[in-house]
Amino acid sequence: MTHELVEQLFGKALANPILDRMDDAASLELEGRIAFTVDSHVVTPIFFPGGDIGRLSITGTVNDLAMIGAKPLYITAGFIIEEGYLLSDLEAIVASMKTAADEAGVKVVAGDTKVVERGAADGVFITTSGIGSIPSGVNISGSNARPGDAVIVSGTIGDHGATILSRREGMVFEVELKSDCAPLGGLVEEMLAASHGIHVLRDPTRGGLAATLNEIAISSGVDIEIEEEIIPYRGEVRAACELLGLDPLVLANEGKLVAFVAEAEAKMVLEAMRANRYGIDATVVGHVAKVESSRPRVYARTLLGSRRIISMPTGEQLPRIC
Amino acid sequence: MTHELVEQLFGKALANPILDRMDDAASLELEGRIAFTVDSHVVTPIFFPGGDIGRLSITGTVNDLAMIGAKPLYITAGFIIEEGYLLSDLEAIVASMKTAADEAGVKVVAGDTKVVERGAADGVFITTSGIGSIPSGVNISGSNARPGDAVIVSGTIGDHGATILSRREGMVFEVELKSDCAPLGGLVEEMLAASHGIHVLRDPTRGGLAATLNEIAISSGVDIEIEEEIIPYRGEVRAACELLGLDPLVLANEGKLVAFVAEAEAKMVLEAMRANRYGIDATVVGHVAKVESSRPRVYARTLLGSRRIISMPTGEQLPRIC
Repeated sequence: MTHELVEQLFGKALANPILDRMDDAASLELEGRIAFTVDSHVVTPIFFPGGDIGRLSITGTVNDLAMIGAKPLYITAGFIIEEGYLLSDLEAIVASMKTAADEAGVKVVAGDTKVVERGAADGVFITTSGIGSIPSGVNISGSNARPGDAVIVSGTIGDHGATILSRREGMVFEVELKSDCAPLGGLVEEMLAASHGIHVLRDPTRGGLAATLNEIAISSGVDIEIEEEIIPYRGEVRAACELLGLDPLVLANEGKLVAFVAEAEAKMVLEAMRANRYGIDATVVGHVAKVESSRPRVYARTLLGSRRIISMPTGEQLPRIC
Repeated sequence: MTHELVEQLFGKALANPILDRMDDAASLELEGRIAFTVDSHVVTPIFFPGGDIGRLSITGTVNDLAMIGAKPLYITAGFIIEEGYLLSDLEAIVASMKTAADEAGVKVVAGDTKVVERGAADGVFITTSGIGSIPSGVNISGSNARPGDAVIVSGTIGDHGATILSRREGMVFEVELKSDCAPLGGLVEEMLAASHGIHVLRDPTRGGLAATLNEIAISSGVDIEIEEEIIPYRGEVRAACELLGLDPLVLANEGKLVAFVAEAEAKMVLEAMRANRYGIDATVVGHVAKVESSRPRVYARTLLGSRRIISMPTGEQLPRIC
């Protein structure tokens, strides 16, 4: 497998007029404010139920752009490939990127490949960077949560993390676990069209809902209280967590978002979300409160009324999850 | 070394108001046409005379933007780090990125780090993506070379490639070889201010001048003829090539560019280049001609008048050169 062969493979699979120009940089027309982001992907296994590193690399970057309210538009991809990695697997990965990019309405406009010797990388790593345009008037940030805001999750929690982990452990369930890996640009666009009261959007990837809520609490200087029993989970995720002794709140998600919305607008936003295939199970799971103790905290309340602190997960519970 | 520790290290070293917001994507104000590019860096050794992977990751991306005439502005960086890699080395790499970014006038606005287990990567890999703004009226592309154009190189050829290779071979010269690794955004800006007759800009990295000239010949559908004896080389590069049996024309450069300029403007462009520290040795080394045979070719002419074809380097002469 030569470097040229790989570049041809990618150029062909991802072809579009901008990529085809093959200059050192792509030239694009954009208007207004721009969102710009990056994510490196090192997931293992590279292929998993519900996706693969290719799909993940597109949806991860698309979702990061969408989480500040931007319309995802263009992607670059840097590939680091271990010498001897199967060409047919690379083809499958790039085809999967193309499918995800088409679904998300984005174009891959520049790419780079580096082949390293056997043993210097583990299969393939993909770093994607993305740009999108931020519609005027949109101001979404992790620091915008306000007391009274409703906390909405867009669907079941923990699917991606439970899938990757159970694969690694070689576990098989009767109902197969599947990653939720999906592009959320369309969902966000419909939410923004439905309401001007969306303050925060965040995709709970590494560290799961626990990390995301803690980050928002700290950025915004607020407390967050969630009702533990109403958070939606798939039965098989719950089963996997029980077997493996895991807390689903720290498991990564790759096709879910958390929205903080002005209370009066929550119903409207929820309706808009449920009309989208990636928001069917959207649920209000909690609310924002003023800081109660010396620093911002996230609390989980049970049906019986007891309350516990959800702390920031420390270290990396699941390395190479994305 | 935890993932959080590394993120703190990067956030501190590269601090700026946009990066500090820590949202999923950076929000930027830009006007007009945008250039967008990506490069993965896997160079070994990670530290080399004249630079390191950190400096290279910034200058490589800055230069790709400059080569379509864009003013480099913002960078994202995705780090893939092998568990156990020295924290002090990471600090040195990030400090070096900061120095290069300051020199180039760009900001690192978003970053991502993934730590993989020992043996799953070789030290550290950095993928940088960059955006820049293309001034109105600028139209630089590898497909714009025209018969009659002067071919200018900005300085000595082969410095980076010869440095990396001799390090790997454990060779020591009396005069130390040094990579030319440098940001060329300022040089390009001054060239564009001096003349509207610049048709092509390209940095001859992987595959060296031989690959770059062949790519331009094919993209533009022209022949290119260069005078082999007037191409500037450092004595120590020439010596290394003789010892190792290498052709300096295929060695990578990381702080040089090739410009194709309308003949009447060549003198003005050359003067502007020589006034910049990265263009002091700029030299006209050849010219563009109409295609002579059945397909575009690059020729080297010797002082004695003989002529040979410079073919596209096949395969990767020097893997992990950048």
